[in-house]
Amino acid sequence: MSYFDAASAVPLHPVARQALHASLDEGWADPARLYREGRRARMLLDAAREAAAEAVGCRADELVFTASGTRAVHSGVAGALAGRRRVGRHLIVSAVEHSSVLHAAEVHEADGGAVSRVAVDRAGAVTAEGYAAALRSDTALACLQSANHEVGTVQPVAEVAEVCRAAGVPLLVDAAQSLGWGPVDGDWSLLAASAHKWGGPSGVGLLVVRKGVRFAAQGPVDERESGRAAGFENIPAIVAAAASLRAVRAEAAEEAVRLRELTERIRARVAGAVPDVEVVGDPGRRLPGIVTFSCLYVDGEALLHELDRAGFSVSSGSSCTSSTLTPSHVLKAMGVLSEGNVRVSLPMGAAQEDVERFLDVLPGAVAGVREKLGAPSPAPVTAAGADVLVVDSLGKRCPIPVIELAKVIGDVPVGGTVRVLSDDEAARLDIPAWCEMRGQEYVGEEPADRGVAYVVRRLA
Amino acid sequence: MSYFDAASAVPLHPVARQALHASLDEGWADPARLYREGRRARMLLDAAREAAAEAVGCRADELVFTASGTRAVHSGVAGALAGRRRVGRHLIVSAVEHSSVLHAAEVHEADGGAVSRVAVDRAGAVTAEGYAAALRSDTALACLQSANHEVGTVQPVAEVAEVCRAAGVPLLVDAAQSLGWGPVDGDWSLLAASAHKWGGPSGVGLLVVRKGVRFAAQGPVDERESGRAAGFENIPAIVAAAASLRAVRAEAAEEAVRLRELTERIRARVAGAVPDVEVVGDPGRRLPGIVTFSCLYVDGEALLHELDRAGFSVSSGSSCTSSTLTPSHVLKAMGVLSEGNVRVSLPMGAAQEDVERFLDVLPGAVAGVREKLGAPSPAPVTAAGADVLVVDSLGKRCPIPVIELAKVIGDVPVGGTVRVLSDDEAARLDIPAWCEMRGQEYVGEEPADRGVAYVVRRLA
Repeated sequence: MSYFDAASAVPLHPVARQALHASLDEGWADPARLYREGRRARMLLDAAREAAAEAVGCRADELVFTASGTRAVHSGVAGALAGRRRVGRHLIVSAVEHSSVLHAAEVHEADGGAVSRVAVDRAGAVTAEGYAAALRSDTALACLQSANHEVGTVQPVAEVAEVCRAAGVPLLVDAAQSLGWGPVDGDWSLLAASAHKWGGPSGVGLLVVRKGVRFAAQGPVDERESGRAAGFENIPAIVAAAASLRAVRAEAAEEAVRLRELTERIRARVAGAVPDVEVVGDPGRRLPGIVTFSCLYVDGEALLHELDRAGFSVSSGSSCTSSTLTPSHVLKAMGVLSEGNVRVSLPMGAAQEDVERFLDVLPGAVAGVREKLGAPSPAPVTAAGADVLVVDSLGKRCPIPVIELAKVIGDVPVGGTVRVLSDDEAARLDIPAWCEMRGQEYVGEEPADRGVAYVVRRLA
Repeated sequence: MSYFDAASAVPLHPVARQALHASLDEGWADPARLYREGRRARMLLDAAREAAAEAVGCRADELVFTASGTRAVHSGVAGALAGRRRVGRHLIVSAVEHSSVLHAAEVHEADGGAVSRVAVDRAGAVTAEGYAAALRSDTALACLQSANHEVGTVQPVAEVAEVCRAAGVPLLVDAAQSLGWGPVDGDWSLLAASAHKWGGPSGVGLLVVRKGVRFAAQGPVDERESGRAAGFENIPAIVAAAASLRAVRAEAAEEAVRLRELTERIRARVAGAVPDVEVVGDPGRRLPGIVTFSCLYVDGEALLHELDRAGFSVSSGSSCTSSTLTPSHVLKAMGVLSEGNVRVSLPMGAAQEDVERFLDVLPGAVAGVREKLGAPSPAPVTAAGADVLVVDSLGKRCPIPVIELAKVIGDVPVGGTVRVLSDDEAARLDIPAWCEMRGQEYVGEEPADRGVAYVVRRLA
């Protein structure tokens, strides 16, 4: 088996495992107690906090451990918003944040707060100008990820932090995807991260609040973790998390070069060996281990299943692989194709031969799925027909509407239009993306009796 | 070292350790993923949920895992209150709940909700009548612990649940102290518990919401744990928690008999061997392993320090051992002495010889602390003096005000009064408790220029 879903979780790092085992015996007691077992637990907790703070580049008393990265984000956003409530209730996030940030923003909105979502370019990156334009006199907080979890694009955190700083607005950075690779540059105010992304155990997140940042923890709290993370501290896991962060950092520079070379190879080979594919995300400013691409006329779930059978574990932002049946909000915000989407995220230590084997297997897996779905051949036959064709794809799920569109486009003359009727949310994203890939004109959408009519004009 | 603070946390059970190690390799991946590693993680999570549900006595789909017992309580209280918001915003708790419940109640109050706190008797127990009297037409939720964490008193959960059920009000049971010993009887609606109390790892709590109970999770949520506990599941720890719950349950009946015999011995021997001591909590309806007593004229922190030096780890509800300098709210609600307070909570497997050694060491440790503080001898000399004596204990901390009172009570004639000036919060509790123990009359408190004057009339 080759596990290529490091952006989701990675197995426990050997150093984390060792630290966990050692501290199970020493760190189970309540660190608030004065007796021997409590003092030992307290010492372990303090040492882990020092180590984690050094890796983040902050003071130990600015960092608390939480029960997960999600919890760190939720507590950080709520606390920072409450701390600046007098300034106002406006929150800025990027359109491609992790769902934990977006969920926190939705709760804020439901509670009467205002939220601006900063758009990204086709590579998935925000700009400092985008944040500058979103800032208002009542902005309480801005949030930006250090790098995107689905496409790997690195965000201009330092520039955005500068713009926010100039406006007196704190910036919360979700560093979940990047903290294992290095500290986050720039003058940010709050930072959240998650240990199981860097080889630490599940159940540990960290939240950093810089001195001087107004912060008011929300919900019930207790005396633990400076009143910012209620509940008994999970010290063995915290110790393991800090130890593995230090360990992966020691390997990071060298491993980044190696993984980048492997993902470069995937970017190049996929584009060459798989027809009708779009490699997405920034080719240069990106995390070392992530590469994402979308395949026309492919059902993401079927492709993942084929790859799993061949021994490869990857993830997908396609709508058909999610329980909500909507495509990834990241791909949507980027305006790229979401069907047949595959995210390969290599863990540290991924073997080159496994990557080669993946590249050998992929074209056949894609072709197999396309064949089953009856996808059009890469070069559809051109044929003259009626000026307007209507394709009824109602009740059919991604990627069928796009496949049916591709099959008939040659049946209308150049200048003629195809109206695709669809009630699948993914079509709104994938039909324009198909037009861009195919050099056809996306005219727009119109309401229909059922679903929506997506109108495409044949140009070639 | 003898660790006698099981009510706070216990070391990892060997079964938990084994399960943890095994599942570190199998349970690290995201259980929401469709690939092999994800499916394995999902299977482990499902099996752990089944096992935990069986131990609780509920359906698997009624139980979610949380990041701690505290988190289970906070989420449970908030979700149940929100689910019945249309009924009203009145919450009932007992006065002796764990701080996590009381903190949740405080947040509800700060947010405009109403809270009733049901009083307890001198043994720390509520009555069903107390809950019945507190119920109102706008009561959204009632909370009651299964057993008290500081004195071990078992609460009449089934009776209270019946009263609540008759009024259509859900009852949330904090079962943190008792779940290792057995399921909670009665027709409760929600239940919270914490794995590190039964030998599971830190970082795992559980929240049960019975089918049909209105529940609306508060704050940002995600698709995990039925939308009731956001953040990546900590599966290795969850597996270990479920395994150890099953393991301790298998030993519970036999171990309960053995520990009860040991704590009976402590109850009897302490009362006999230590002068001026009050053993608190219900002598019969109590958890097997907990016994609590308070020693007049003793500084709790100094006593804990002496016991730690002698190799015993115990805790205390005395004000001088807490960061807030207020005595335990439990002892306060019971109206018992808080000074020189010691809670012995034996872990399963506690050795009889360690308990014997503790009983050998304790009288000397108490006497040593009393000597250092200049405590009065057990039988103070009676002497006639002025009718009213004023003792200035301002700026002095527990147990000094009581020691100074005891030293002068013999200097006023029978019928005369002593006014103790004190600004220590513990005096409000400990001076009346001393009067009761000594057969003197506590007249009441009066405001003074600084602090409060506690007035005591000599009767004997």
